[in-house]
Amino acid sequence: MDSLQVSEQEQATEAPRKYSREHSERFRHELHEFIRIPSLSGDPARAGDVKRAAEWLAAHLHALGIKNAKVMPTGGHPVVYAEWMGAGPNKPTVLVYGHYDVVPAEMKDGWNTPPFEPVERGGKIYARGATDDKGQLFIHVKALESYLEASGGAPVNVKFLIEGEEEISSPNLAPFIKRNLKLLKSDVCVISDSGMRAIEEPAIAHSLRGMTYIELEVQGPKEDLHSGFWGGATHNPALALVEILSKLYKPDNTIAVPGFYDDVVPLTAKEREMISKAALTEKQFKEATGVPAVWGDKKYTIRERLSARPTLEINGMWSGYSGPGPKTIIPARAGAKVSCRLVGDQDPDKIYKLLSKYIESITPPTVKVKVTLLTKGKPALIPFDLPEMQAAERAYEKGWGHKPIFTRGGGSIPIVADIYNMMNIPVVMMGYGLESDGLHSPNEHYTIEMFHRGVETAIVYLGELAQLPRKKVRK
Amino acid sequence: MDSLQVSEQEQATEAPRKYSREHSERFRHELHEFIRIPSLSGDPARAGDVKRAAEWLAAHLHALGIKNAKVMPTGGHPVVYAEWMGAGPNKPTVLVYGHYDVVPAEMKDGWNTPPFEPVERGGKIYARGATDDKGQLFIHVKALESYLEASGGAPVNVKFLIEGEEEISSPNLAPFIKRNLKLLKSDVCVISDSGMRAIEEPAIAHSLRGMTYIELEVQGPKEDLHSGFWGGATHNPALALVEILSKLYKPDNTIAVPGFYDDVVPLTAKEREMISKAALTEKQFKEATGVPAVWGDKKYTIRERLSARPTLEINGMWSGYSGPGPKTIIPARAGAKVSCRLVGDQDPDKIYKLLSKYIESITPPTVKVKVTLLTKGKPALIPFDLPEMQAAERAYEKGWGHKPIFTRGGGSIPIVADIYNMMNIPVVMMGYGLESDGLHSPNEHYTIEMFHRGVETAIVYLGELAQLPRKKVRK
Repeated sequence: MDSLQVSEQEQATEAPRKYSREHSERFRHELHEFIRIPSLSGDPARAGDVKRAAEWLAAHLHALGIKNAKVMPTGGHPVVYAEWMGAGPNKPTVLVYGHYDVVPAEMKDGWNTPPFEPVERGGKIYARGATDDKGQLFIHVKALESYLEASGGAPVNVKFLIEGEEEISSPNLAPFIKRNLKLLKSDVCVISDSGMRAIEEPAIAHSLRGMTYIELEVQGPKEDLHSGFWGGATHNPALALVEILSKLYKPDNTIAVPGFYDDVVPLTAKEREMISKAALTEKQFKEATGVPAVWGDKKYTIRERLSARPTLEINGMWSGYSGPGPKTIIPARAGAKVSCRLVGDQDPDKIYKLLSKYIESITPPTVKVKVTLLTKGKPALIPFDLPEMQAAERAYEKGWGHKPIFTRGGGSIPIVADIYNMMNIPVVMMGYGLESDGLHSPNEHYTIEMFHRGVETAIVYLGELAQLPRKKVRK
Repeated sequence: MDSLQVSEQEQATEAPRKYSREHSERFRHELHEFIRIPSLSGDPARAGDVKRAAEWLAAHLHALGIKNAKVMPTGGHPVVYAEWMGAGPNKPTVLVYGHYDVVPAEMKDGWNTPPFEPVERGGKIYARGATDDKGQLFIHVKALESYLEASGGAPVNVKFLIEGEEEISSPNLAPFIKRNLKLLKSDVCVISDSGMRAIEEPAIAHSLRGMTYIELEVQGPKEDLHSGFWGGATHNPALALVEILSKLYKPDNTIAVPGFYDDVVPLTAKEREMISKAALTEKQFKEATGVPAVWGDKKYTIRERLSARPTLEINGMWSGYSGPGPKTIIPARAGAKVSCRLVGDQDPDKIYKLLSKYIESITPPTVKVKVTLLTKGKPALIPFDLPEMQAAERAYEKGWGHKPIFTRGGGSIPIVADIYNMMNIPVVMMGYGLESDGLHSPNEHYTIEMFHRGVETAIVYLGELAQLPRKKVRK
């Protein structure tokens, strides 16, 4: 890339960047509208709201002049698809992936304001979905709008693939992609659904963890029993569950399931060094989470535990009576939701088998246990020296104002591995959020400044991609 | 007692027994009315219903001609008090204790019909409180009515002390009794709030277990965290709770809390022989409860475990997300309700101290734990060779049709020990329910035949008490 090109390219991005700054208030106002729709994909009672969010987004894209924007059915919640191909066949095509669904949020969980009534306070937007992922996906919509309005077109072709089931592990997206490979055909996929430690430290995630999510239920008596009449000779199902769950970890905080770590690719010295660039001290960790002390496998650093190592978590647990006052029962049942985050090369199906076999093996004959697979997803690991990755690095430098680091993400975007493998294109995870945004927690929020820097970075990234040497078409 | 007396006494009970049979339909209709009031003492939102139940009962007693029937305030839910002193000062006075409050019940727990809409089906009344304790206490009301209506009076004086806080361990009843010792002065207390194995095997409980009921809450992060971003270095509070609870029992199913068994009075050979009369086989236990196998301390028989040994139960447990589908959080908190049934001479306060000290000692520094005492009650053990106990034995033979056994009850009526000690009178627990009535469970029910036999037995018991040699007044 010579200096003339640089100059041309920077001129080309200047108009849309200026446009985005001038319309920032309206952009956020539109985002608020989008957020107000409680598109909880995991709750069947909210299916209507999920659909409404898809329709809102398709209508919004349509109004920007993308006349083919549409809501496409899947076996579950629909996909929003739209494409702008005005750059022509000689220019690369970027596939923007995002998700318009959100996880549950209720006031009683500790929200200060209603989770689906976005409010701006102290430079932040507070609402469920503000950062995960409505705010971050909307950045790409506004980047394209800025090109279309300010320059009459973008330097590359853009396709949008926005799904409504990411938070329930995308059960219907892989089949959708398989059916629509031709429609979706692109040169690179960009995803903004991840975070950085601080605004001055943008990060490109080149790895994500996979997942095996199960539910287990222990049944003892046929119905709740009076603890005075039957206590002493009945194995309390809550106690039995507790005994089972307490055996999932060893005293050194490693997972006790036999074979669990067998397929984990060991970290190399080079990777550990790269990960150490995003080191988290005990103090930082305690401040961010509020825990009294750090926990985990002492053979790995905090950041390694959070991103490069597999985990097992109890996400929920229930049994018997939890209302006010005492109730003297032996519960009939006790249950828990348990999920594992997986790393390369762990296979979600194999982990499910190991886990359920182990749970059955440690269940005593005094109760019955049932293990159900709720969702699963493969881990992903993308090489970080690809040109599309390097272009993203430059885009952050120019658009965001800071050079990014490459990191392993601890979270899971189940479809990343599928897009990478099925479409055979690089997947570039350009996160525009903060790790401390409170994703999946009460009072999720998104920093307004980051939203606007995100739009400018996304504008620059499209410009950078337009400059890449046209590569041979991948099959 | 000579044959003439027997004959006179049997004549004296014949008229009220006949009356009770002739009015059985109406008696049940009135009981249904009483049951319909959802007097849940543990739920602050139901305080109005609890009061309504007290008022209904007082009005009912008033309508029977007991003009002094009244609702008396306490520090919590009120007491219903009434007395009929028409037998005169030369006759003994019987104090009938019962409780008009009930434990929670909701359709979603597995009820076939609404818990507060009593239905009669297959010879049983299905409703919350049918047997525990509205049905059983109402027996005494109807026994007195039968005397008043059929014979113009009862052979002994009768006082009613019906409380509204039994299911929350009677926090205000002992102070009430202390304040009203003169008003309540009696020669014997009779309580019907216990069960028998089968209708042909009535039982008099001469021992009840006490209770220490706690709630514990484990707190980790300040709010729910995204399991992908923070998992691996955060001690999951649900896991920490599970680890704590799993250490409350030893592998031999004895309670692991140091000092827990120190004050337990060992069972003598004679007591074990008496308890063996109410033996439960493994098969019977499994059929009654639906559990796949019997559990517990193998050094004791099933019946001993259920009645003469202390227990520790998890009555409820909660953490994180329990709705439909997956949610990938690390919960901020996890909690449990845990209660111990105590036997002589365990002290509820001492057990609370031992338990909370032990829990704190096994809580890791990665989380915080809070232990709260919810309720407590002392165990009780009444000699079964007292004349009032023997009179009860005769009453079952004549009124119920079967000779009873003396048993240790596994449940807790916290006030029994207090009445026994504070009023210095025998407490006779004449249960008129079945162990399988589903107390505290969905589809609680009461056998209609047992309700009516109960009324006749209660009528006979008053007659038997009238025949006892007048003893010196206890102070």
